[in-house]
Amino acid sequence: MHHAAHPPYAPETFRALTFHDAVPRFRDGGDTPRAYLERCLETIAAREPEVMAFAFLNADGARAAADASTARYRAGKALSPIDGLPIGIKDLYETRDMPTGMGSALFKGNHPVRDSALVQALRAAGAVITGKTVTTELGMSHPGPTRHPMDPRRTPGGSSSGSGAVIAARMLPAAIGSQVVGSVVRPASFNANWALKPTQGALNRGERQGYSQSTVGVHAGCPEDMWAVAVEIAKRVGGDPGAPGLFFTGEDAPPAFRPRRLAVLETEGWAVAHPGAIAAFDQALAALRAQGVAVLRRGDHPLLEALERRVADAMALSRDVCAYESAWSVANLMAKDAEGLSDSLKARFAVGCSVTLAQYRALLLQREEMRRALAAMGAEVDGFIGLAACGPAPLLGDTGGSSLGITHTTGNPAMNTASSALGCPVVTVPILAVDGMPVALAVSAQQHQDERAAAIARWIAGAVPPIAL
Amino acid sequence: MHHAAHPPYAPETFRALTFHDAVPRFRDGGDTPRAYLERCLETIAAREPEVMAFAFLNADGARAAADASTARYRAGKALSPIDGLPIGIKDLYETRDMPTGMGSALFKGNHPVRDSALVQALRAAGAVITGKTVTTELGMSHPGPTRHPMDPRRTPGGSSSGSGAVIAARMLPAAIGSQVVGSVVRPASFNANWALKPTQGALNRGERQGYSQSTVGVHAGCPEDMWAVAVEIAKRVGGDPGAPGLFFTGEDAPPAFRPRRLAVLETEGWAVAHPGAIAAFDQALAALRAQGVAVLRRGDHPLLEALERRVADAMALSRDVCAYESAWSVANLMAKDAEGLSDSLKARFAVGCSVTLAQYRALLLQREEMRRALAAMGAEVDGFIGLAACGPAPLLGDTGGSSLGITHTTGNPAMNTASSALGCPVVTVPILAVDGMPVALAVSAQQHQDERAAAIARWIAGAVPPIAL
Repeated sequence: MHHAAHPPYAPETFRALTFHDAVPRFRDGGDTPRAYLERCLETIAAREPEVMAFAFLNADGARAAADASTARYRAGKALSPIDGLPIGIKDLYETRDMPTGMGSALFKGNHPVRDSALVQALRAAGAVITGKTVTTELGMSHPGPTRHPMDPRRTPGGSSSGSGAVIAARMLPAAIGSQVVGSVVRPASFNANWALKPTQGALNRGERQGYSQSTVGVHAGCPEDMWAVAVEIAKRVGGDPGAPGLFFTGEDAPPAFRPRRLAVLETEGWAVAHPGAIAAFDQALAALRAQGVAVLRRGDHPLLEALERRVADAMALSRDVCAYESAWSVANLMAKDAEGLSDSLKARFAVGCSVTLAQYRALLLQREEMRRALAAMGAEVDGFIGLAACGPAPLLGDTGGSSLGITHTTGNPAMNTASSALGCPVVTVPILAVDGMPVALAVSAQQHQDERAAAIARWIAGAVPPIAL
Repeated sequence: MHHAAHPPYAPETFRALTFHDAVPRFRDGGDTPRAYLERCLETIAAREPEVMAFAFLNADGARAAADASTARYRAGKALSPIDGLPIGIKDLYETRDMPTGMGSALFKGNHPVRDSALVQALRAAGAVITGKTVTTELGMSHPGPTRHPMDPRRTPGGSSSGSGAVIAARMLPAAIGSQVVGSVVRPASFNANWALKPTQGALNRGERQGYSQSTVGVHAGCPEDMWAVAVEIAKRVGGDPGAPGLFFTGEDAPPAFRPRRLAVLETEGWAVAHPGAIAAFDQALAALRAQGVAVLRRGDHPLLEALERRVADAMALSRDVCAYESAWSVANLMAKDAEGLSDSLKARFAVGCSVTLAQYRALLLQREEMRRALAAMGAEVDGFIGLAACGPAPLLGDTGGSSLGITHTTGNPAMNTASSALGCPVVTVPILAVDGMPVALAVSAQQHQDERAAAIARWIAGAVPPIAL
């Protein structure tokens, strides 16, 4: 049931803010990036007191950037398809003109005067860096202040809490998030975002290279903006060191691609999924089948069953891998001010300290076996479909799904652990509603097939009608 | 010819400082880590005004750590084989108790109160973090003040200038360096170090994950200390995120391993090598053959010839890969204070900005092909042997071997580019002298065979007599 004073979310009528649609009018003079930004700032002024999506808002800097963009359009010299696009940056990434607080008391006022690689790329493409969006503590479990824009008693998800929420609140057309376990796809699902969690390494993480499984992600109101932001980053700063970066064949979002065969990737989240979400998902599958798409379930194909069995441990694996990899840097924070860290972070640190090098190696092998199981399905299906979250955004304080005895107040990432461990791309398709709140489909594909996933996602959004249960 | 007032280097009589040999006397009370440290500090006081190997010396902190170590030995509770070992840390890695200046005016006074992963591991193992050793500007080309301890008119090499020099000056028994192109192996050769440039990713680079080909390295006066330092890091903080870390089978340095077959890896450095170095190398090969070791040259085996041809472009490849990967972070420094950067750094930045994503991908493929060519030799030989530098340390101001129109005042890395691009382990064996200055052999092996390389290196040091030409 829907609890809020806000009207229930209706996927057939909700329209997120988009930028792509506004660009033609920048070109013909009927609108300007500055005016577009002012409309965003008005929405932010109206909604931010309740939503609390921003760790820092740089309205003056954004206005100056939007004015420069306006002048470029007037001169016929737009820098890119996202010239003038107001965007939020998850408060883990460095921005030269704003502090980077990382959702932690220990980084309050932290302000290295540097732009992370992706921020540099976005500025070079003409995007308007508008603010820093709230993250959970250091991108891990402990939640920030952000409330769900469609129901303030609910979490917006995490760790990219603010980046998901600014889309649902129509404050901004796009925002940068990041995912280690489920931090882009889950908040995207809760907030009816189009989001890309790209192939591991496909977008440059800049100074944040500390995890072997984490990615930059893009949250947006439409697939065109989502894809354009990703491409403009990749063109300018590529992927992580040693990675080939996002593959794309043109400037525009990939055209809709009708898959012949899709496999359902249930993941370990299936066992704890909201029954309404599963019912909505089943309706979506029925719509796909009605369109002639063959949909495989795990019982239909031994390699798909093998993949599901491999990824059934993805939560535990991700927890231990990430805790091991971050232990040395968290140790620095523990030495500095242990009292400034949450209990959940300390619990993760304890896990990290308990993992030995030999155990870590075994986990890397286990993850590699997961990835081989994914690759083995490469010729069998065009892509994968699943739920982007276990259900709609839970109420604040809901403790479901903890794997560490931790209160998961940003929701259970169990639907997202598989694709994080697999390092494969995921695109969310926000066309479901359960209990008056959004739920998204998750379309994934083989590593480096980000464009394929986006193309299938666009086709599904056009072919499957919105489903509200 | 030898130019200095200092006596010429004689590999048969030079004895670097070692720690491994001192430990039994710590156990029986005949010596203490504090007394060992004081002897180091005396040498530092005597030699540092001329050598200038330290960016920062923390004598008080080192004394406190050495006292704690002394107490542990008294109690029979040494933390590791390197408990009490005084060690220098290349001034690129963060240390909570010392600034991290990175050889750049832009980082003067930079002091994040954090320990890099390896520093944390070394402290946990009881090592005595004694000082920060001079690096070239940001670990790239522009030299720091350090002079060669055996001839102050010569460079100690770079970028790990101070880490190489503290060994030759007998100031410390070990130091941490790092290598992107030739920054561990070259100064190790110039300074008669035992050094390990490990497999790519084998030792955790902590906050310095920005290059796809760079490694932490260990400089030492003997193979036991070299290996023990590497193992104690790997045990505690492993390798880079996603890498399995250094493989080792025990606490002790691997016993000498007599190879049946070695291949000479000439690399692109061969064409510009000092004739005396090649003559000394040929004598070493003759000694190996006299011991019954089969030594293949490139003409003897088509796969070895194929490998040599692949790595002939390693310098250009490394330059472009690294320039691309660092461009976004150097852009932040350019925006902050371009005047504070050297011309050589700006030239590298210009290269980085000129490399496109498509070109970078092609370079990654080219590097992968080099690595396949190395792997193809895996069953053919036990390891590889070559020169660790193109010759003895050149005089300061020697401009030979520039690939960027840059004055390479720390010497030509052409002998080192192959193993950097290959990501394979290298161990230096300091048994040659040319013109009264050191030159080292370089023993390398397949990726992850660091222990094999160290074992072969130890055998060679015992089987091949020192050679002075």
